[in-house]
Amino acid sequence: MKLIRWGAADQEKTGVILNDKWYDTSAFGEDYNEQFFNDNGLERLAAFVKENEGKLPVIDASARLGSPVARPSKIVCIGLNYADHARETNAPIPPEPVIFMKSTTSLTGPFDDIVIPKNSVKTDWEVELAIVIGKKASYVEEADALKHVAGYVLHNDVSERAFQLERNGTWDKGKGCDTFAPLGPFLATQDEIADVNNLRLWLNVNGQKMQDGNTSNFIFNVPFVISYVSQFMTLLPGDVISTGTPAGVGLGFNPPIYLKEGDVVELGIDGLGTSRQTVRNYVKN
Amino acid sequence: MKLIRWGAADQEKTGVILNDKWYDTSAFGEDYNEQFFNDNGLERLAAFVKENEGKLPVIDASARLGSPVARPSKIVCIGLNYADHARETNAPIPPEPVIFMKSTTSLTGPFDDIVIPKNSVKTDWEVELAIVIGKKASYVEEADALKHVAGYVLHNDVSERAFQLERNGTWDKGKGCDTFAPLGPFLATQDEIADVNNLRLWLNVNGQKMQDGNTSNFIFNVPFVISYVSQFMTLLPGDVISTGTPAGVGLGFNPPIYLKEGDVVELGIDGLGTSRQTVRNYVKN
Repeated sequence: MKLIRWGAADQEKTGVILNDKWYDTSAFGEDYNEQFFNDNGLERLAAFVKENEGKLPVIDASARLGSPVARPSKIVCIGLNYADHARETNAPIPPEPVIFMKSTTSLTGPFDDIVIPKNSVKTDWEVELAIVIGKKASYVEEADALKHVAGYVLHNDVSERAFQLERNGTWDKGKGCDTFAPLGPFLATQDEIADVNNLRLWLNVNGQKMQDGNTSNFIFNVPFVISYVSQFMTLLPGDVISTGTPAGVGLGFNPPIYLKEGDVVELGIDGLGTSRQTVRNYVKN
Repeated sequence: MKLIRWGAADQEKTGVILNDKWYDTSAFGEDYNEQFFNDNGLERLAAFVKENEGKLPVIDASARLGSPVARPSKIVCIGLNYADHARETNAPIPPEPVIFMKSTTSLTGPFDDIVIPKNSVKTDWEVELAIVIGKKASYVEEADALKHVAGYVLHNDVSERAFQLERNGTWDKGKGCDTFAPLGPFLATQDEIADVNNLRLWLNVNGQKMQDGNTSNFIFNVPFVISYVSQFMTLLPGDVISTGTPAGVGLGFNPPIYLKEGDVVELGIDGLGTSRQTVRNYVKN
């Protein structure tokens, strides 16, 4: 099943994708949030969609997409999870995962603008595979980890490198600005993805390929990451874990390349669709 | 006004403290959450309490207290905000605030147990003044910062030092374990506190004074901190910013002292009451 949320920001309705068409599931009566995932929402939604086959309203293809999951309790990220990316940023291969957090206020739709923060000169991109938690996870064994997964989603872990690395710590300072977490287009349930640890992921800036990797190059794979994070904090249904980015970020070029107003970022992962963000400068509302 | 939340964990009801007695405000019909603060809940609650003077049910003094604010979108923390604490941990005085985040699943009541995580040997205490945001804050000027405050609350920023400092980054890894954010006993609205930048704060372990500081020794004071954090992320109503701890944490002793099963931690801040946690080892449920 492929889940979407659509409509105006902060007023998103729910939907599903069937045969590449978008269908409105508002009548199901629940948002895709912590309670939905906790109460076996995926199974109940699948039954609802089956019952209403042929009767669900079609969503106009011009509709805005929001994040396919409602605001989670947390967005946890893994740093330096591809050896080639660690090398390009002059960081050693980590002996165990680096964990940092993105403010959930950074969450935005997959085709929304990326806003360069005030006083930022080093806004950068990072295509990532993100995990959505389906069942509460605390001290989970690696062998059981996938039982706690609702599905997977494409994520651009937008990062301000000066804020992250040159402003006296921690990384969180450069990761949680508004619009820094475009998520989507859709949440794919686990059954949609044959092998989550073998997916191509890529990112273009203004049509030029910058990142082209594969999750088979993870230093720490999906079950390991879930088990690992759950040793340090309890993961709730709907929580997002972003698994790190392969080589090709702006910081890795010599000289570095950063985003500027008007740039267009496109990214994708096998089986998880593509997203596209236009970059603009911050303007006071 | 002094706000409390009371009753079983995750099922807390609301209340207020009047003349040192606890009164049930469940009939007001709203939890103390993002929407409450955003919709001028403090003013409306004050009017409700006045209207119902003498008629509010008294809460039994044996009731459990929960966090006085419902789960916020984020708990942002300032690191090394007292010069004496920076010195004791061999860290330089920061030229600008260190920011890190606590997982909101770490939130717990002011008299609940602190649970030492599995595989932890360095669980430590930190008495802190925490700010609760009342109005959305993005790129706020220092002069306007206090307009965005709902009130203040006592916080024990419990920290696992090995997870925080020896497990390959970032600090978030040692800050967000379950029960690591005892908050309360109550949220004091701004008018209750004459000068938030001049409050004594202290912490005892097993009756022995370990921390005894004053917020007048902040490197970065409350308005500065709010303005600063709001440059990096949008603060939502109900969000918590914890402002850092003075000297006297377990890590600062030679040799360091860490919490063990049965220890009792008591802490307090002028005008914000006291809290007490008993330490116990993790036991699988």
